[in-house]
Amino acid sequence: MKTLVIGGAGFIGSHLCDALLAEGHTVVCIDNFSLGTRDNIGHLMQNPHFSIYETDAFDYNNLAHIFGEERPEYVFHMAANSDIQSSAKNPEIEYRNTYSTTFQILCCMRNFGVKKLFFASTSAVYGDRRDILLDENTANLCPVSYYGAAKLGSEALISAFSYMNDMEALIFRFPNVIGPRLTHGVIYDFIHKLQNDPEHLQILGNGKQTKPYIYVTDLIGAVIKFMNTAGCGVTLYNLSSEGDTSVTRIADIVCEEMHLQSVQYEYTGGESGWKGDVPRFQYCIDKITKAGWKAVYTSDEAVRKTVRENIDGM
Amino acid sequence: MKTLVIGGAGFIGSHLCDALLAEGHTVVCIDNFSLGTRDNIGHLMQNPHFSIYETDAFDYNNLAHIFGEERPEYVFHMAANSDIQSSAKNPEIEYRNTYSTTFQILCCMRNFGVKKLFFASTSAVYGDRRDILLDENTANLCPVSYYGAAKLGSEALISAFSYMNDMEALIFRFPNVIGPRLTHGVIYDFIHKLQNDPEHLQILGNGKQTKPYIYVTDLIGAVIKFMNTAGCGVTLYNLSSEGDTSVTRIADIVCEEMHLQSVQYEYTGGESGWKGDVPRFQYCIDKITKAGWKAVYTSDEAVRKTVRENIDGM
Repeated sequence: MKTLVIGGAGFIGSHLCDALLAEGHTVVCIDNFSLGTRDNIGHLMQNPHFSIYETDAFDYNNLAHIFGEERPEYVFHMAANSDIQSSAKNPEIEYRNTYSTTFQILCCMRNFGVKKLFFASTSAVYGDRRDILLDENTANLCPVSYYGAAKLGSEALISAFSYMNDMEALIFRFPNVIGPRLTHGVIYDFIHKLQNDPEHLQILGNGKQTKPYIYVTDLIGAVIKFMNTAGCGVTLYNLSSEGDTSVTRIADIVCEEMHLQSVQYEYTGGESGWKGDVPRFQYCIDKITKAGWKAVYTSDEAVRKTVRENIDGM
Repeated sequence: MKTLVIGGAGFIGSHLCDALLAEGHTVVCIDNFSLGTRDNIGHLMQNPHFSIYETDAFDYNNLAHIFGEERPEYVFHMAANSDIQSSAKNPEIEYRNTYSTTFQILCCMRNFGVKKLFFASTSAVYGDRRDILLDENTANLCPVSYYGAAKLGSEALISAFSYMNDMEALIFRFPNVIGPRLTHGVIYDFIHKLQNDPEHLQILGNGKQTKPYIYVTDLIGAVIKFMNTAGCGVTLYNLSSEGDTSVTRIADIVCEEMHLQSVQYEYTGGESGWKGDVPRFQYCIDKITKAGWKAVYTSDEAVRKTVRENIDGM
């Protein structure tokens, strides 16, 4: 199948390109290389079933040109701001790179008659609901970050465009995703900080922030498994590994894997790492489990594996 | 209090300006006169507590200039596309006039430290959920119109901006709102059609579409009553009159009030008036009722009163 992966040179997008090619699909990739990198897709450049357009998915005309040239059958929309801390200071980033990009992509799908969509959503749409188990039927979604708001707005757009244009949309709400090619986040930060100063580690918040972390190939396996199962309208799943991992536990794992002893942890204090960060959540994954999917790695295993791989790569 | 009513020359916005002035507030109105009219606010132009800026709230710089000049304490955001049939053909209208306008307003509030917001949302955020009673805790909001999607996206933005900037936001989800100064919708259409041809009336759908209609002054009374009751974050209410009215019943009332007998109804057929229209919904208003509010007019009474007033005005 001719697939279009928007944001395909990013951390998660590039793993999706790998998997789609391995499944025998043709992959057309769009990336503006703002967060994605040429390194992430360097190994694909000689693959005759892979091509790349360097452009901004925010720009309807650029996007429409590619839709017209390539006539994709399936759009994987992986393009978004993924650096939540940066958009907390500047919400315009989410308006432009997350919400508006979704709108322009949906307009292209509508105008070129493309019916199949995968959208990478997030646990951040739920907001700060630390005391309940979050499932797909949880009500009162009140995002506390501009990122979560732009993703929830994108889901709403997908709902209306799917209905109005008979599209089949599959949406996964991802928790924290980690693995090779990671470019930011707590694991990335801790490794960097400890490489610079192996005796002290500043930890944002009180270290008790606890979330599920999923290994990127687990997540991509789910995308591939379910990509053709959505009916008309929106099919939505929470996706996660088993278990969760606290920030202090991540620090411990990084220190263990870097063979550092007696590192002094310095907590900045407070329940959240920064305003708009959700310090903990519990994810119900019964729906996708019943549909026959399970992550290979637990949250702790995903963290350790990612730490090992990223120490080598830095 | 210095209030800013964005979309203040529109159908609902202009009634809000009237009420705020009657309550002793100063009203600064912004309107681009795309759907609003000078007639709607003509009677206010000599009022020393009223002023009007003709500009587009989509434009951040224009908006920021007004926020800087006027320093409002309370923003009433009534600016949106309200013609759902037109945006069904062109979703760009909702992206620009509904969602992006909300974003720019919130950015101004953030940058100028304005803490109080009223937002006019809609039953359309629920999507087509005709078999359940819709309350504020209903889950799985799946809008079927671009209008509903842009309003739900706006609610998500308000959630994040409120949290990040300690704003107090009051959101009402309106059903169909009718009354003097109406510029479109089923009542407006029927009167126009029958003035042109008093013997035949084309009715979109099968006429069984049934919704609650609220009289505009009832709704404005609720805005005034609750405007200072919201705490930090989002306070959300469904708002409605009692009862509901079918489209055929509206046709009957219009014919009665126009003293037309034996008008031939010609139904275009189908459950919905157009794709993206929700043919019926039931609104739970227990929350606002318990908070001490009740509409003066039932849905049928609101329809008849509106018909009478609009026959004279056309």
